[in-house]
Formats: sequence, C-alpha cells, structure tokens
Amino acid sequence: MRSSLQRYGVAALLGCALTAALALEFLTPENHTAIFLTSMLAIIPLAGFIGRATDNLAAHFGGAIGGLLNATFGNVAELIIGAFALRAGFVDLVKASLTGSIIGNTLLVFGLAALAGGLRHPVQRFNRTAAGLGTTMLLLSVVALVVPAVFHALSRRTGQEPELRMDTEIAVVLLLTYLASLVFTLKTHRQPHEPAGLPPRLSISQSIALLVGATAGVAWMSELLVGAVSEAARVLGMSDLFVGVIVVAVIGNAAEHYSAVRMALQNEMDAALSIAVGSSTQIALFITPALLFLSYLIAPTPMNLLFTTFEVMALGLAVLTIAFVAHDGETHWMEGVQMLAVYVILALGFYFLPGGK
Amino acid sequence: MRSSLQRYGVAALLGCALTAALALEFLTPENHTAIFLTSMLAIIPLAGFIGRATDNLAAHFGGAIGGLLNATFGNVAELIIGAFALRAGFVDLVKASLTGSIIGNTLLVFGLAALAGGLRHPVQRFNRTAAGLGTTMLLLSVVALVVPAVFHALSRRTGQEPELRMDTEIAVVLLLTYLASLVFTLKTHRQPHEPAGLPPRLSISQSIALLVGATAGVAWMSELLVGAVSEAARVLGMSDLFVGVIVVAVIGNAAEHYSAVRMALQNEMDAALSIAVGSSTQIALFITPALLFLSYLIAPTPMNLLFTTFEVMALGLAVLTIAFVAHDGETHWMEGVQMLAVYVILALGFYFLPGGK
Amino acid sequence: MRSSLQRYGVAALLGCALTAALALEFLTPENHTAIFLTSMLAIIPLAGFIGRATDNLAAHFGGAIGGLLNATFGNVAELIIGAFALRAGFVDLVKASLTGSIIGNTLLVFGLAALAGGLRHPVQRFNRTAAGLGTTMLLLSVVALVVPAVFHALSRRTGQEPELRMDTEIAVVLLLTYLASLVFTLKTHRQPHEPAGLPPRLSISQSIALLVGATAGVAWMSELLVGAVSEAARVLGMSDLFVGVIVVAVIGNAAEHYSAVRMALQNEMDAALSIAVGSSTQIALFITPALLFLSYLIAPTPMNLLFTTFEVMALGLAVLTIAFVAHDGETHWMEGVQMLAVYVILALGFYFLPGGK
Repeated sequence: MRSSLQRYGVAALLGCALTAALALEFLTPENHTAIFLTSMLAIIPLAGFIGRATDNLAAHFGGAIGGLLNATFGNVAELIIGAFALRAGFVDLVKASLTGSIIGNTLLVFGLAALAGGLRHPVQRFNRTAAGLGTTMLLLSVVALVVPAVFHALSRRTGQEPELRMDTEIAVVLLLTYLASLVFTLKTHRQPHEPAGLPPRLSISQSIALLVGATAGVAWMSELLVGAVSEAARVLGMSDLFVGVIVVAVIGNAAEHYSAVRMALQNEMDAALSIAVGSSTQIALFITPALLFLSYLIAPTPMNLLFTTFEVMALGLAVLTIAFVAHDGETHWMEGVQMLAVYVILALGFYFLPGGK
Repeated sequence: MRSSLQRYGVAALLGCALTAALALEFLTPENHTAIFLTSMLAIIPLAGFIGRATDNLAAHFGGAIGGLLNATFGNVAELIIGAFALRAGFVDLVKASLTGSIIGNTLLVFGLAALAGGLRHPVQRFNRTAAGLGTTMLLLSVVALVVPAVFHALSRRTGQEPELRMDTEIAVVLLLTYLASLVFTLKTHRQPHEPAGLPPRLSISQSIALLVGATAGVAWMSELLVGAVSEAARVLGMSDLFVGVIVVAVIGNAAEHYSAVRMALQNEMDAALSIAVGSSTQIALFITPALLFLSYLIAPTPMNLLFTTFEVMALGLAVLTIAFVAHDGETHWMEGVQMLAVYVILALGFYFLPGGK
Repeated sequence: MRSSLQRYGVAALLGCALTAALALEFLTPENHTAIFLTSMLAIIPLAGFIGRATDNLAAHFGGAIGGLLNATFGNVAELIIGAFALRAGFVDLVKASLTGSIIGNTLLVFGLAALAGGLRHPVQRFNRTAAGLGTTMLLLSVVALVVPAVFHALSRRTGQEPELRMDTEIAVVLLLTYLASLVFTLKTHRQPHEPAGLPPRLSISQSIALLVGATAGVAWMSELLVGAVSEAARVLGMSDLFVGVIVVAVIGNAAEHYSAVRMALQNEMDAALSIAVGSSTQIALFITPALLFLSYLIAPTPMNLLFTTFEVMALGLAVLTIAFVAHDGETHWMEGVQMLAVYVILALGFYFLPGGK
C-alpha cells in the first residue's frame, strides 16, 4: 500500500504541476483544452488519496462511524467539482455530470465489470436481495427526477413559473431517504459477510492530513477545470451536455471502474454491484440534494431538479437495464455487453443532441 | 366482533348526524369544508360495515360465491362516491380519485405495511408468484390508461376528437380480464393456504339488512361530500386534483391501511400484499370500467379514460416501484421507506401542480 | 415430414397461382385486396419451406454453423418483404411491420402459448436466467428505438434535421450486439439440454434447391403484396399503420404462433419462450439494422430509426409486460390472458389512431 500511495502521490503532483503551469501561461484556447484534460487527470489520483484517507479513518473508528465516513466521503470529488461549477453558474453542467455519474456507474462500471468478470467466469452470482434494494433506491432517484421534469413541462405550458419550492422539498425527501438507508445498511441490516477491513496503515492524524491535503488539491484542480470546460468543449467539438454527461463522468468515476472490474475478476460480484449501485445511489440521494442546498449559498441562481428530457429518459432506461440484468442474481459476459451497448447508444444520443436539450 | 360492530355503529351514526346537521344549516363556505370532512369520516365506519356484512354473507355461502361477493363489494364505497361525483359532472375528480386509490394502495398502504412490519421483523417473506401476478395485473391497468392518454395527445394534435369508442372497448377488455382473474383466483388456482374463514356472526338476513343500510348511508354521505368538495378544496387551498388523488383516496382506503398494517405486524405479508395489490387491481379493472359504463346512464357527459399526463406517470412509477420491491418475495423496513418516499414525491407533484393538468 | 412438406407445397403453389392470376387481371381495387390477402397466405407455407430447408442444412452442418444458419434465415421472409417495401418507398410500413413483429411475438405468440399451455397444465416452469437474458435483449432494442424517437422529437423542435448518422451508428451497435449474442448462445453458453436435432431428411443439394426456390417465391409474393397494400388498406378501412403493425405481423409470424403453442401444449415452456423472445430479438437486432443498411442501396430515401411515439410506447409496454410475466420462471393461463389483453388494447390504439402518428 505504501508503494501505491507513492505512485498516487507522484501522479497527483505531476498532474497538478502540469495544470498549474498551463494555467499560468497566457490562456489560449489550446491551453484551455490542455488544462481541462490535465486537471481531470490530476483529480483521479487525488480522489484515490481521499479514498485511502477515508478507509484509514474508517478502520480506526470502525463500525457505524467508519461506514458513515465512507458513505460521506465516497463521492466528495464530485461534490467539490459540482460546487465550483455551481459557483461559476454552470448549473446545466452540474446536472449533466450528476446524470452522467449515475448512468456511468450503473451501465458502464457494472457493464465493464460483468463483461470482464464474465470472460473469466461462466456464471457469476450475487445476492438478489441486496441488488433489489439498490435498484429500488435508483428507481426512487429516477422518480425524484421525473416528477420535476414532467411537472415543469406541464406547468410551463400554462405559463407558470417552475416551482423551486417543490424541488427543494423533493431534495429533503431524498436526503431523509438517504439517511434512512444509512441506518439500514450500517445499523439494522449490516451485511454479516462484510469484510473485516484491513488494519489501518496511517495514523489518525496522518489520515486527516492526507484527507485535507487531497481535498484542497481537488478543489484547486476543480476551479481550473471549471474555468476551462466551456472553451475546451468548443475546441473538442462537443456540447457542454456531452462533456458533462460522458467525459467528466467517465473520468470522475475512474476509481469505481477500477475497483468494480477488479472485484468482478475475483468473482466478487456482490462487491462489484455494490460499488456500482452504491455510488449511483449516493450521487442521486446525497450529492444531488447537497448541491441543491449548497446552490442557495454559493450559486448566482439556485439549482433546480429540472433535468432535460433526454437526461430523464437516459436515467430511466439505465435503471430499467440494471434491474433487468440484476434481478435474477446472476450475470454472464453477454449481460455486460448488453449494458455497454445501452450505454453507447445513450452516449451517441448525447453526442448528437444539440446543446441545451 | 360484536363490540367492534358497536364501535363502528357509534362512529357512523355520529359522523352522519354531524354531517346532516351541518348540511341543514345555511351553507357557508366554512360549512362546506366541515361537511366535506365529516362526511368523509362517516364513510370510514360505514365502509367497515359493508365489509363486515360481506364477510358474513361470504362465510354463509362459502367458496367461489363468497369470493365473488368479497370481490364485488370490496370497493363498493369508491363505486358509490364515484357514481355521485359523475352525476354531478365531476369527471376529473372521479378519475383523480381512481388514480389516487391505485397509487395509494400500492405505495402508501403497502409502504406503511412494509415499514411497520419491517420494524418488528427483520425480513418478511411472501409468495413471489402471487406478487408477480398482481403486479402484472397492475401493469395491465397502466397500459389501459397509457394507451388512451398517448392516443388523445397524438390525435388532438391533428385536430381530431378523442375517440370515446376506443375507451369503451378498452373498458370491455379490462372487465373481461377482471372476470378471467376471478375465475383464476376463485376456481382454477385457489390458494391452498387460504384461511378457512371465521364462522359467520350474523344471519343472512341480518347481513343483508346491514349491507343495505350501510350502502344507503354511504350513498347519503357521498351525495353531501360531492356537493361540498369544490368549495372545500378552495377553502383548504388545494386543487381539485390534489383533493381527489390524495385526500379522498387516503380516507377512502382507511380500511385497507388498517388491515394491511395489522397483517404486516403479524408477519402475514402475503395477506398485506394481497390487500394492497388486490384492492388496486379491483379499482383499475372493475371500478374504473364500471364507472365508465355507468357514466353513460347517469352523467351529463360520458367518462373517458383520458387520465392526465401526471396521473399516468404516477401510475406507471407506482407500478414499477411495487414491482421492484415485490419481485424478490422479501421486504425490509427500508423498502417501506422507499415506497413512502416515492408516494410523498408524487404527492408533492400533485400538490404543486396547477389544476387540470 | 415428407407429407407435411407436400401439404406445404400444395398450399404454396395454390396461393402463388391465385395471386399471380389476380395480378394478371386488370387491377381493380377489389383485386388489390384479394392480391394482398392471397399473397400473404402464400407466404406462410413458403416461409415454412425456408424453415425446413434451413433445419436440414443445419442438421447437415451441425453445431455452431447450424445455429448460425437458423439465426440468419429464421426471419428471412420479413427481410424480403421489408426489402421490397423499402424499394417501393414504404418506409413507414416497414417500420410498422418491425414494431408489429416484435410486439406480436412477445405478447400474442407468447400470450397464446401461455394461455393454451396453461389450460392444460396448472403451472408451467421455465429457466429464469434464459428468460432474463432474452428480455434484457428486448429492452436493449427498445432503448435503441426510444433514443432516436426522443432525439428527433427534441431536435425537430429546435429546427434541426434528424441525424441519419446517429441512427446508422446505433444500427451498428445493434448488429454488433447481435453478433455477440450469437457467440454467447452458439459458443460460450450453449444450452446443455438443447435437443440433439432430428437427422436431416433432405440432402444438402435438395435443401439448397428448396431454400432458393422458396426464397424466390417469397420475393415474388412480396413484390405483389407491396404493390397491393395501400389500396387494400383503403378498401378494408384500415390505416397503413394498422395493416403493418397488426395484419402483416400476425400473418408474417404464423409459423412462430404454431410452433410456440405446440411447445406450450407439450409443457415445453422454455422452447415456447425461446421462440417468442428469440424471434423478437432477431427482428430488433438483426433484421432492423439489416434493412437500414439495405435502404442505402435500394430505397429512394434511407430508412431512419424514427419510430412513432405510439410504436415506441407499444414496444416499451410489450417488453415490460413480458418481463413482468417471465421474471419468476412460471406462467399460468391467467398470465396468457393478461398478455393478450395488453395486445388487444395496443391493437385498439393502432386501429383508432389516425394514420402517420
């Protein structure tokens, strides 16, 4: 682990240094693209550091507090990027990256895991009950996003203003459900087969220092990233929507991809599914309402829950797909191919869609 | 049981008396609200009486005839309220209360049952096949409502009249399917583990007298209720749609709530699910077409099946949610929370939606 | 088998002769209707010949090559009819018949099989994993059709042209997924309980002669059919959409109906489900992209994937229905009734819908 920490550190420092160097130069459009890419790449090892620090703190405190730490800091990089984007007024980009993280985690992360694992193991089995609970949570998130979308579509037709108050109340419901799910998974229905967890390698103070340092690094990179994203998208010939839904989300979930595929190769499909579904759920039920509340404090305009028609459709189809795949408690490599095919078709739609739909 | 009958009787008489007293007064807007509330409350024990009388008759006749009686009189209060509302021309209110009964029975009744039962029992199991049959019946109902909604939306665009004939033919299909399901549950696939049923406490003539009396009471209260609903909704600051979907439906299904939660606390999840899904199915496949046919006889304009976009969406999401929750034959308290969260989010949508959408 | 071949032959020759005789007469509107009907009826035994020839060739070659032959020629009649309709510019009719084949195979074929089999056997069981894989493939097809439909609806609003390029790329994804599924079913996950297959009755050269002859017959009948369809639809008082979705699809899948019901009566529900789902999947993932690519070569305008709102809705509801029915690995006759009810409701919608929606 020491050595992997060192590798992380070198990668993070290199990425940050490169981004900073570029940012200090005179800002040409080409530089914007380079800053966009290097800052994204710098965030990957920094997010890895946050994960390591959290794991160590969780191992020190153990039990429910450890679980709570993991649940809270699991997608902290997304939260920080989102906060900086909100502050810059990129509300649509934030919503696009939330959508993209959810469909990416369900279809791309779990699809790759099922494909990679399925090529090594003919049939991979997992706990159907846990899978069902996870997909129901995801369905709940889709409900929370479909209702405002249909609502705004209908009320706009009658000439009335979208109701921010409804969105805020829905966000409260999501957050309460998330808290209930923490009580469920950490308290009343702890998985008995949960791994005991490795002994911590870092002391509490070392872990906190690492956590603070890595978080500061993510914040710095996020600020540069957000400043460069629009120009970079234009240069790359992509819409802001596509950059948010596909590019930011794929890179932002690099850690989940790596872990889920590794688990699937070891035939630990329960863990792989839990990473994919757990991360999606956390984004939908925790990061989304958290950013909505935060937007009242830091954003020029508050964030609503009015996701675009295409985003809502993509979320609904992603949840249906993973529910169809996971409901029988088995995966084959072909189901991995099916999930990836759905992801590619959705990505094609986002790519060709004119901006702002 | 004798004593519970007496308690029912006292409550029903009190409610009716109060409502009648208010209705005899000069009708101020405040009185409308009070009549609305007291008549609703009077209907609860009266519906309980109908249930008792039907149970007794069913126990006398036994077997398939008993089952048929239960299936026919199970939601007779909804039928009577609907008939009076149709006669008064409140077609949208009727459709809203049908929607509300279905989503209330699936999400609220079963959600409360799963939560209450789940707090006492860590895992509650039930028969997956019966659950699957019930959710497929519900899906069928949603299809029957989605098709006219999409149809009317499309044909309206081309300037043509909505086709009442199609809706009537769809209603015939629903009713035939309902009859087939009675043959299935009462004849070819009787549950072997069905409870033997208590011996009847009332004679046949007593049961019939109670049935006639309680039905007359429900009819009287329904007439007063329907006369007061519009004004009451205005005073309470709610749209007619919200009153129909949420308020009328919650009170109209009080008996189902009570029974389902009691069954869940006794870990009889098969019975709890059967109450929730059976009642929803009965409303979708029997009460809905029955009211449509009745509307030709008693209503100023015939009722169509053109439910609003938001209603169709709510029905679809409710059916998907219960299918996701029930497909593995197990519930935990967290799944109860999830169903309630979906219900609250849908209710928020109906609350904020401007009328008539 | 020899005698059934002879019966097929007599029926095919009679049908072809009658159609040709009618076509040679002066073409009155009444003749158009007769040509439409006799050519459709002539195609049924001809499609049966193609099936026999393919089975014989498959038995000669055996293993993966035999499976590949069956997979490629299984819906060759649909492909030929589609090609002639495309050449005549009837793009909407082709898309309607694709939709109709998919919902017909899922709801009507499997519904009839479940009903007929369920009347003889109280409960019929089948492999849940295979059913799950099939329904996920169907869901994938629906995704592939929903994405362009929503895409075009949104991009049309902003005044931009539908993107044929996206549809073509989606078709590539579908075809690649279909190829992967062939590798899955023929190579890595062959069903161990697959029937050994009857010994071939025809030599290789006889089989090829029969295949070529029957294919030529289908092509000839398809050309006459396509020439008569518009006028026949007008005379019969049906829209082109209804003719494509219901009439052509029901007759075009006559072989599937016969085989699936026969399998269900013998309590071979795995085979019945495999016919229904396999044929739907083949149409969605192989015939649809094949026709799209073919349209670049032979059609006046290339075919896109922009299915109508009602078609997309029907496909989505059909897939959800079969998923709800099949997910528990059991069917009863009542589930057959439910599927048929959904089919009838959808057919009513297509019947009443004004053309071109």
